[in-house]
Amino acid sequence: MKLTDERRKQLRITVDYTNMTEKYLGGKGISEKTLHSHSKLAKAAHAYVHANRGKDELSMGWTELPYNQSEVVADILETAKLIRRKFDAFVVLGIGGSALGPAMSFNALCHLHYNDLPKSKRKGPKFYVEDNVDPVRMKELLDVIDVTRTCFNVISKSGATSETMAQYLIISDLLVKAGVNIRENVIFTTDARKGNLVKISRSLGGVKSYVLPDGVGGRFSELSPVGLLPAAVLGIDIKALLKGAAFMDKLCKSSDLRKNPALLTATLQYISMNNGKNISVMMPYSDNLRCVADWYAQLWAESLGKNVTLDGRPCNVGQTPVKALGTTDQHSQMQLYTEGPYDKVITLLAVGSYKEKTPIPHAYRNIPDVAFLGGHTMEELIQAENKATAYALTKAGRPNYTIFLPEINEFTLGQLLFLFEMQTAYTGAMLNINTFNQPGVEAGKKATFALLGKEGYDLQRHDIEQCAGDPDYIV
Amino acid sequence: MKLTDERRKQLRITVDYTNMTEKYLGGKGISEKTLHSHSKLAKAAHAYVHANRGKDELSMGWTELPYNQSEVVADILETAKLIRRKFDAFVVLGIGGSALGPAMSFNALCHLHYNDLPKSKRKGPKFYVEDNVDPVRMKELLDVIDVTRTCFNVISKSGATSETMAQYLIISDLLVKAGVNIRENVIFTTDARKGNLVKISRSLGGVKSYVLPDGVGGRFSELSPVGLLPAAVLGIDIKALLKGAAFMDKLCKSSDLRKNPALLTATLQYISMNNGKNISVMMPYSDNLRCVADWYAQLWAESLGKNVTLDGRPCNVGQTPVKALGTTDQHSQMQLYTEGPYDKVITLLAVGSYKEKTPIPHAYRNIPDVAFLGGHTMEELIQAENKATAYALTKAGRPNYTIFLPEINEFTLGQLLFLFEMQTAYTGAMLNINTFNQPGVEAGKKATFALLGKEGYDLQRHDIEQCAGDPDYIV
Repeated sequence: MKLTDERRKQLRITVDYTNMTEKYLGGKGISEKTLHSHSKLAKAAHAYVHANRGKDELSMGWTELPYNQSEVVADILETAKLIRRKFDAFVVLGIGGSALGPAMSFNALCHLHYNDLPKSKRKGPKFYVEDNVDPVRMKELLDVIDVTRTCFNVISKSGATSETMAQYLIISDLLVKAGVNIRENVIFTTDARKGNLVKISRSLGGVKSYVLPDGVGGRFSELSPVGLLPAAVLGIDIKALLKGAAFMDKLCKSSDLRKNPALLTATLQYISMNNGKNISVMMPYSDNLRCVADWYAQLWAESLGKNVTLDGRPCNVGQTPVKALGTTDQHSQMQLYTEGPYDKVITLLAVGSYKEKTPIPHAYRNIPDVAFLGGHTMEELIQAENKATAYALTKAGRPNYTIFLPEINEFTLGQLLFLFEMQTAYTGAMLNINTFNQPGVEAGKKATFALLGKEGYDLQRHDIEQCAGDPDYIV
Repeated sequence: MKLTDERRKQLRITVDYTNMTEKYLGGKGISEKTLHSHSKLAKAAHAYVHANRGKDELSMGWTELPYNQSEVVADILETAKLIRRKFDAFVVLGIGGSALGPAMSFNALCHLHYNDLPKSKRKGPKFYVEDNVDPVRMKELLDVIDVTRTCFNVISKSGATSETMAQYLIISDLLVKAGVNIRENVIFTTDARKGNLVKISRSLGGVKSYVLPDGVGGRFSELSPVGLLPAAVLGIDIKALLKGAAFMDKLCKSSDLRKNPALLTATLQYISMNNGKNISVMMPYSDNLRCVADWYAQLWAESLGKNVTLDGRPCNVGQTPVKALGTTDQHSQMQLYTEGPYDKVITLLAVGSYKEKTPIPHAYRNIPDVAFLGGHTMEELIQAENKATAYALTKAGRPNYTIFLPEINEFTLGQLLFLFEMQTAYTGAMLNINTFNQPGVEAGKKATFALLGKEGYDLQRHDIEQCAGDPDYIV
């Protein structure tokens, strides 16, 4: 992707918060005074993130990913080339951040029916992200791939993720039974030195492995080898993705919330949260951005959903992300958004120029409800509906803002991801919480261990079995 | 599907609300007293729905779909057989309820990689549900189908749905250009007498059409020809689906909320809503039930998101549906669910017996974190995680209940859909709103018309364009 300065300028993402303001939204909007009164907090959040960026011990190593990966990127590009040549399918075995990032870039930048295309029209092998342990899904994946002709990218920092390791056990067993040396068909993305995948790699005589760097949590890992290897295999320009992130990072240098788009959206969300908006809807007007909403849902929920502040005071903060899709969900969720409780802030993702226009032909001139569509393009239709939604929400007093992508490509997607990551970091700082941990996930993990009879977890089992299935409460 | 009385009993869906109760959830739970105090309201809601069932003028015709379709079902089965013989692909052109229902039954009851299977292993043609007007998606669909070998099911009650009609204009133009008589490759599902698709059918000399009956709104249409034709084409046993719905209807005869599962869940949701739980999470532990959460999201949001009561008083009611997937979203949303605000009620969908078990082989005995998985099945793993999630939520004081499906098949899916439909009708009655309209969708439609220059909508255009893009508020 050729990126002149002029082209970068054209491709700059912008945030339009017109419909968040008192001026346009009336009493339901945010006043200049309120926004101004938050500028100090915003500056402090900016300073906190700036001062701690790159610190692995705070899990803030992700801020440097746009800059410190030239060697690994070169290696990934080489490996990707080999994979494209050698394999018919590429399967990501991972869950959470290890899956949502790869699925997002696939959805955003590849053909929407990629796996349906004939081989000659694809840039790479068929592509699957397996992020569950549904026994049916695993079996049915095996119905459509030939494991001997498939590359499996096993992604887990610790190698102790039950879901991923269960998948790996099944796949490695099948490879051995098919007479394939496991090493030939798997790539690990894991810790540099410790963890179970490192041990397994050693026991197999060294598996090709990429490092999930310290300081990069799962939900902040898309721009690390976690996301970059799968993207490169698909022919996505990963250098342009990183350049987009770096470009956004530059826009985030300012501590003025009217100049730094991520600081602006963080402040808007923070004010909204304090104003009783406990729901954050993300509604892209593009099928290619559908999985951005999934990826953001993890980033936002897991980062901000916390029960204790940094100074140890109990709290129960966080905003629930809701995924929607324009125009589709106009026919599903809009009724609630315009008439239901005033509990939401809505982020619309708009696209300036879609890569296809798709003209709508003239016909049925005697049927006005149909005929008026003729002569327009689908691009015009979806853009009109996007604007119409912003208008209808605003008329109904519902705060909404639009993130505008001039086009969808590697450079704009890189910007968008980094914007959301910075927005999350800023908002977490405003809430005075640890944005980068996830202690609430442990209880469920331990309970699973107990139920499956893992050593050392016996005691909990009785407690868990007590906690469901009381016949008095089954109808 | 053979359904003896014994088999029906085995396949009965149950609701386990242990973890909603004060006894198990402590102070965050619902007390016996509270539940009891709602029994009168529940009885009134039950009486309202019972008295009005089948009334088309109240849009309650959907309650009779399990009983009044033997003729159309026979016709659909014949047509489906022809379609399977004649076409390589079947495409639903529809949006909202016209798409979510077909997509749900496809996801629930077909192979999870259905379109990837070779033709010999599929029961029907390739299957696509096109519920958006993204110009890229439309173009990329056309990359993978041959329109001359594809059957298009155009679904719209009025034939005035812009998205669907734009798709139809593109497709019919392509068919004509390819020398195909449009009538040969399209089927309409629409009003019996009026609307644009009826006019178009006439102008084409009569297109094979199914009736979307009066009294059946889009979001309640899955058990009408809207859902039945696509399902039948896929080889789904639609008679068993309807029998499942009838079976649940029978369970809903009781006005006692401890006997009627839908009245129970309606009451639990209603109490939760009044208790500040403005979010309803649906978390199936099955990839096959993923789209049930999408379908439910429309049903729940559009039915209950209302700003006026039946007696004309202003309100802003409704609960925001959130879709999650177990185990996947344990690694994305659980942190928020267990530590964030106390603003949710969580519905888990559990499965008794998955159609595959998928054993996990023994290996790496020296790595305990991995080895303990060996010898279990993936079924055991996902079921343990399901229970562990219910336990972790309960320990964190988060109300949750489980809808238990003994298996996933036509009979249980039919039960589940009807349960949700009845639950929605009961809850709407408790809220004293019109559950079956969607006036809030109109503003956006009109704004779209204005932006696309449809006659009669000129005045609004200026207003809409004022309402976004103020350069003072773009960063």
